[in-house]
Amino acid sequence: MAVPQASAAFIARVTAARDPLAVARALADTFAVTAAARDKAGGTPKAERDQLRASGLLSLVIPREQGGLGASWSETLAIVREIARVDSSLAHVFGFHHLMLATVRLFSRPAQWRPWFEQTAAKQWFWGNALNPLDTRTVVRRHPGWRDFSGRKSFCSGAMDSEMLIASGVDAEGGGLLLAAVPTGRSGITVHGDWNNMGQRQTDSGSATFENVRVEEDEMLLDPGPLSTPFACLRPVLAQLLFANLFLGIAEGAFAQARRYTRQEARPWFRSAADSASQDPYVLRHYGQLWVELEGARALVERASTLFDEAWRQGETLNAEARAKVAVAVATAKVASTRTGLDVSNRLFEVTGARATHGELALDRYWRNVRTQTLHDPVDYKLHELGEWALNDVPPTPSFYS
Amino acid sequence: MAVPQASAAFIARVTAARDPLAVARALADTFAVTAAARDKAGGTPKAERDQLRASGLLSLVIPREQGGLGASWSETLAIVREIARVDSSLAHVFGFHHLMLATVRLFSRPAQWRPWFEQTAAKQWFWGNALNPLDTRTVVRRHPGWRDFSGRKSFCSGAMDSEMLIASGVDAEGGGLLLAAVPTGRSGITVHGDWNNMGQRQTDSGSATFENVRVEEDEMLLDPGPLSTPFACLRPVLAQLLFANLFLGIAEGAFAQARRYTRQEARPWFRSAADSASQDPYVLRHYGQLWVELEGARALVERASTLFDEAWRQGETLNAEARAKVAVAVATAKVASTRTGLDVSNRLFEVTGARATHGELALDRYWRNVRTQTLHDPVDYKLHELGEWALNDVPPTPSFYS
Amino acid sequence: MAVPQASAAFIARVTAARDPLAVARALADTFAVTAAARDKAGGTPKAERDQLRASGLLSLVIPREQGGLGASWSETLAIVREIARVDSSLAHVFGFHHLMLATVRLFSRPAQWRPWFEQTAAKQWFWGNALNPLDTRTVVRRHPGWRDFSGRKSFCSGAMDSEMLIASGVDAEGGGLLLAAVPTGRSGITVHGDWNNMGQRQTDSGSATFENVRVEEDEMLLDPGPLSTPFACLRPVLAQLLFANLFLGIAEGAFAQARRYTRQEARPWFRSAADSASQDPYVLRHYGQLWVELEGARALVERASTLFDEAWRQGETLNAEARAKVAVAVATAKVASTRTGLDVSNRLFEVTGARATHGELALDRYWRNVRTQTLHDPVDYKLHELGEWALNDVPPTPSFYS
Amino acid sequence: MAVPQASAAFIARVTAARDPLAVARALADTFAVTAAARDKAGGTPKAERDQLRASGLLSLVIPREQGGLGASWSETLAIVREIARVDSSLAHVFGFHHLMLATVRLFSRPAQWRPWFEQTAAKQWFWGNALNPLDTRTVVRRHPGWRDFSGRKSFCSGAMDSEMLIASGVDAEGGGLLLAAVPTGRSGITVHGDWNNMGQRQTDSGSATFENVRVEEDEMLLDPGPLSTPFACLRPVLAQLLFANLFLGIAEGAFAQARRYTRQEARPWFRSAADSASQDPYVLRHYGQLWVELEGARALVERASTLFDEAWRQGETLNAEARAKVAVAVATAKVASTRTGLDVSNRLFEVTGARATHGELALDRYWRNVRTQTLHDPVDYKLHELGEWALNDVPPTPSFYS
Repeated sequence: MAVPQASAAFIARVTAARDPLAVARALADTFAVTAAARDKAGGTPKAERDQLRASGLLSLVIPREQGGLGASWSETLAIVREIARVDSSLAHVFGFHHLMLATVRLFSRPAQWRPWFEQTAAKQWFWGNALNPLDTRTVVRRHPGWRDFSGRKSFCSGAMDSEMLIASGVDAEGGGLLLAAVPTGRSGITVHGDWNNMGQRQTDSGSATFENVRVEEDEMLLDPGPLSTPFACLRPVLAQLLFANLFLGIAEGAFAQARRYTRQEARPWFRSAADSASQDPYVLRHYGQLWVELEGARALVERASTLFDEAWRQGETLNAEARAKVAVAVATAKVASTRTGLDVSNRLFEVTGARATHGELALDRYWRNVRTQTLHDPVDYKLHELGEWALNDVPPTPSFYS
Repeated sequence: MAVPQASAAFIARVTAARDPLAVARALADTFAVTAAARDKAGGTPKAERDQLRASGLLSLVIPREQGGLGASWSETLAIVREIARVDSSLAHVFGFHHLMLATVRLFSRPAQWRPWFEQTAAKQWFWGNALNPLDTRTVVRRHPGWRDFSGRKSFCSGAMDSEMLIASGVDAEGGGLLLAAVPTGRSGITVHGDWNNMGQRQTDSGSATFENVRVEEDEMLLDPGPLSTPFACLRPVLAQLLFANLFLGIAEGAFAQARRYTRQEARPWFRSAADSASQDPYVLRHYGQLWVELEGARALVERASTLFDEAWRQGETLNAEARAKVAVAVATAKVASTRTGLDVSNRLFEVTGARATHGELALDRYWRNVRTQTLHDPVDYKLHELGEWALNDVPPTPSFYS
Repeated sequence: MAVPQASAAFIARVTAARDPLAVARALADTFAVTAAARDKAGGTPKAERDQLRASGLLSLVIPREQGGLGASWSETLAIVREIARVDSSLAHVFGFHHLMLATVRLFSRPAQWRPWFEQTAAKQWFWGNALNPLDTRTVVRRHPGWRDFSGRKSFCSGAMDSEMLIASGVDAEGGGLLLAAVPTGRSGITVHGDWNNMGQRQTDSGSATFENVRVEEDEMLLDPGPLSTPFACLRPVLAQLLFANLFLGIAEGAFAQARRYTRQEARPWFRSAADSASQDPYVLRHYGQLWVELEGARALVERASTLFDEAWRQGETLNAEARAKVAVAVATAKVASTRTGLDVSNRLFEVTGARATHGELALDRYWRNVRTQTLHDPVDYKLHELGEWALNDVPPTPSFYS
Repeated sequence: MAVPQASAAFIARVTAARDPLAVARALADTFAVTAAARDKAGGTPKAERDQLRASGLLSLVIPREQGGLGASWSETLAIVREIARVDSSLAHVFGFHHLMLATVRLFSRPAQWRPWFEQTAAKQWFWGNALNPLDTRTVVRRHPGWRDFSGRKSFCSGAMDSEMLIASGVDAEGGGLLLAAVPTGRSGITVHGDWNNMGQRQTDSGSATFENVRVEEDEMLLDPGPLSTPFACLRPVLAQLLFANLFLGIAEGAFAQARRYTRQEARPWFRSAADSASQDPYVLRHYGQLWVELEGARALVERASTLFDEAWRQGETLNAEARAKVAVAVATAKVASTRTGLDVSNRLFEVTGARATHGELALDRYWRNVRTQTLHDPVDYKLHELGEWALNDVPPTPSFYS
């Protein structure tokens, strides 16, 4: 792996200053320079992924015991959000990497996840996603001591250029969902690099094929297994909280760009009594509204993050009631940040004017990114779920989406 | 003053249990029984005001040094919100009483506010409002050792049945705003009892007349005087935060009534596939949306309250930057709770159906109350103010509305 | 019946000038004077109902052949809307009167409806509603030559002070819905006068009791019977179009009052750069938005009215496809006018300010009226129905609500 | 000009069948096939522009006296909307071509516009735009018998590959706006082909340079000149109505694509009780809402078009009041179609789901196109203008934007 020269300094700084947020900001500044161009190009942001590896941030949430930086989830997600402000594709794969780490932590035995954590920290592994419970085309067949994974899989974010994958398949016997952690380079795995969607264009969320991939028993995530305990059921909650941070980060990035443009580039409309666009009454009112929306989403995301940290710390003692409470807070934050993300990225143009549609600025990418990613699971059913809670006291039924 | 028998028990309970919130809840349960009937009747809720007196809660925010309960502002406003859930008129006058206490605390010398605080705690005085900076009809003329207040004044919430008033007038000499704390019974003061508006019907927010009212120099709030220091400028911030709690409380009350009705009374529409209204997909989606709105407003109001407490604790060391920060957080919370209040009180009917318009239920009062009170100062200019902050880094200019 | 002196002149004018809209405007001007006071009082607007009788307008839609004014439905509904601008209770009962006439026209034989029409025109009968398909408490039992109607009924708009009623009941034998036209004074019918809801307060939409009411066979609406043909299925379409006109009329009335207040009474906020409220940029923007909403609803209501007239003129040759087309146009107009009514009546206060909440103005009645009446049937299911059309080409299933 | 073989047939069909809408639909079907690919490529849609030339539709609004098809403006704009459903860039340049024809018709003498019309009809000229009143960089200097146009100009939609241009410049003497019609190939004119914006990517709305371009006196549009009479002031009204049709067409195209996808490709969410996405209650409700919005915009656009035709027919007898009436109707339609366009193109994804973000579908282009073009002039100031009308009876002040 060709690591940029800066990496040693980065790692040193992280180690010395224990300030991952500062490192993330420095990285984000770098990513920002090329974000519009890379959005246009699509494909794998190899150089930036390597900068993330070199920065040491891939071990952010790994406990110090396993050689990681020992950050909390709220700290980790704050960094996802920081990156999302300038590049939501990189934020996405960085966030998914940590979600995969949470997956092995929650679904496997310590004897499994500890070595994976240690190696991830030591070798700056990047984890990718090949877990998609609604895509049932991959079938798992049992053999003595191992299982065969065969079939196709869609929406494999961050699988390309990863060292490890979480793969899912349907048990040929019982029909249940089975998960495993496998090296991406394992024989039989092909990641197709066929993601070419309108947003989140550098997430490599395309398809992968498993052709008689041999997965050892101790790579299977069976004990306690997926969604097996209230604690294990924090996995989908974390995924949703990750999205909330992603959407909020996009909204904040869009707001920052709009603000910069209004202050530095925009002109007042010829009918405006104001001397500058930034004194126009309608422009000011828009900013007031965007601010209130952003602050509301921020408050909900931050509260949900705090509650998530508390729940995580309880480990296997977490009960279903406590899990439900954090799941509701996270779902609430996710709905709010979905709306805020869509609204800010759409309305930013009303405070910039026509010239801000210039291709070089690529200000449409905020909307394209948040519009794409907010479709992960339908907001209507999230509202339905929250309605069950608010009206009927029925907590969200744990699934990979709740 | 004929104090209800329960009062001794209340006071004892407050003193013993130091649990004003529990007292407030008990009072709120009592107020709830007659809230709809009293809304219809309008006028002064004399019995309920006396229950508030008897409860000891009128000394809630008064420090223990002056014989009060020593609550923080966030605790005090949480009780305003608790009462607003069932009766926003009583919440209003109870909140304004405390706002008047803050007014003397912030605008007068310790030698002035300490005795007022002590007497309020000892005698369960109720303070009312005759301060209205935009109504310039009352003129103050200087005499040796005293001033003459003469003129009319509108929107005097809680002046009726109060022991003390904060009155404002325009200085006949310089044109500046002058404030004083005077006994409501002072010769020349007439409170007209002419409030008959569509909402907040038991706030007695009608007019008062001052006819050559003699105000002693040591009743004038001159040192440090209105809005004279960043700390003194917390007064309008508190007023806005009080409104935010009022609007949120109304929204929460409306939501609770809607929920009760949907669960116990509503029927599914004949075209619905659901067996009960509470399982109808559209009903559930509405509840999900109302929940997200309420949670967003709650998070913002709670954050603003915490920030306000911190600012208050700084006292005269509070600087303009710190004051601006809390003013922005409060303005944000107020805009959000304005919207939430209006939206929940309007949309509640979509989850109850036509029969919930029955006059006995008086479920329209939530909308009438929040619609009336949210007009105190225009939300458009609050958004303008927040836009100045969000876009131009310009903090709100202190005034009696910001 | 004590008819006001003015009635002869009114009738003469109608007959001479053939200008019912001018008559309606004159009546509306009269109704407007007392609308706020009567809203507060509730009960039956006897004097105004008699003015409607005296005006000749109760025979508006009755063909000239039967002695009526021969207006089209779009002309008739335009007059409903005209009255709704100042008094939506009177507009409601006036509209329901005509809906009842449509009911006998569509569900009974010419030998039945012709005499009813003639007598209505000759004697200025007022028809009321005791038809409520979702209230199954009234049971119809068959006897030789007549039927017995017994049971209770809710939401009987305009039944009080009416000469004729359309009553519904459940057939004790087959369980089907049976309708009849009966004199309100028929032995056994009691109209309770118990309507005391938050809006539409003078519609007398309370309950009625039928105690062994004898209904003759030729009073039964059996041929062709309810919703029996595409033409007969125009009845619910007319009901929905009536509501659309009612809601739009309320919105227009609220807008007119807001406009008057802003121009004559409102003051600019002290932070506004404008000299008058009517020059404030935010006030102007609100009016622009309200205007666009109103114009959109007006265009849809007018288009739907035109289509309804065309469908009506086809009579029994109307086929299901043509009926579906007008039903969709009417449903669309109704959804739009529901939103517009709620929005204008809520937002009008943002362009008037706090003083416009004064009880004498009673400006809250627009919201209370439209909020109450828009609950007649849920807008969610109207949207569902339109979704079936827009997405799946499935026309609305005829019922008493579609 | 290499005209496609099909052109003769097209022209024959137009001439024979007098059915330009059928021709436009056939063209639109062809454009639709490559619309996504051409959106991605940007640049000049040369082949499609030639198809438009060959179709005869460039003479659509030219009277038969001058050899055109003699369509009304509402017919012409209906065809703009038809094309906008599949390709809003082509609709834009096609619409602007006709706007330029209106410009010479309204601002020049018959002796000027008649030959231009005749030649346009005979030679299928395409007119482009180099008129931008807010861009004052081009200066016009007077010489005996001619004028010199020199300077740069932005937002020159359709200038590339055009035969004729309308150019604007600032009079070096008086500072007024001067317009001229000149051949695009005139010496000194350079069209830069530098449009690379996020939407309307094939409109060539980039910049042009005029270097000592010689413009003859009889090419100047001086009699009656720009915005000189109420009739001449229909020019900006037409521009706004063109935009309204463009936005509505985009909305209709987005809706059609969403509908196709939901019916043919979408799957119900795993929590949905429905068997297909098209039976999901939330999906149906979304379609109901989108339908109501679209119908509202359609009704307003159609009414405005009818009014425009009437105003146009009045010619120079049109007075300011009549012009104001149509300007208000058009502004109303434009605001409504702006909102509808933005809303439908954003929300379409909620009824399709995540897979509809696939790059091949390019469904984001509806939003990018309408987001870009709706910034032509700020909707806030259009609302302000409508507010002046609705509140103060003040008609829109004629300008190139009202």
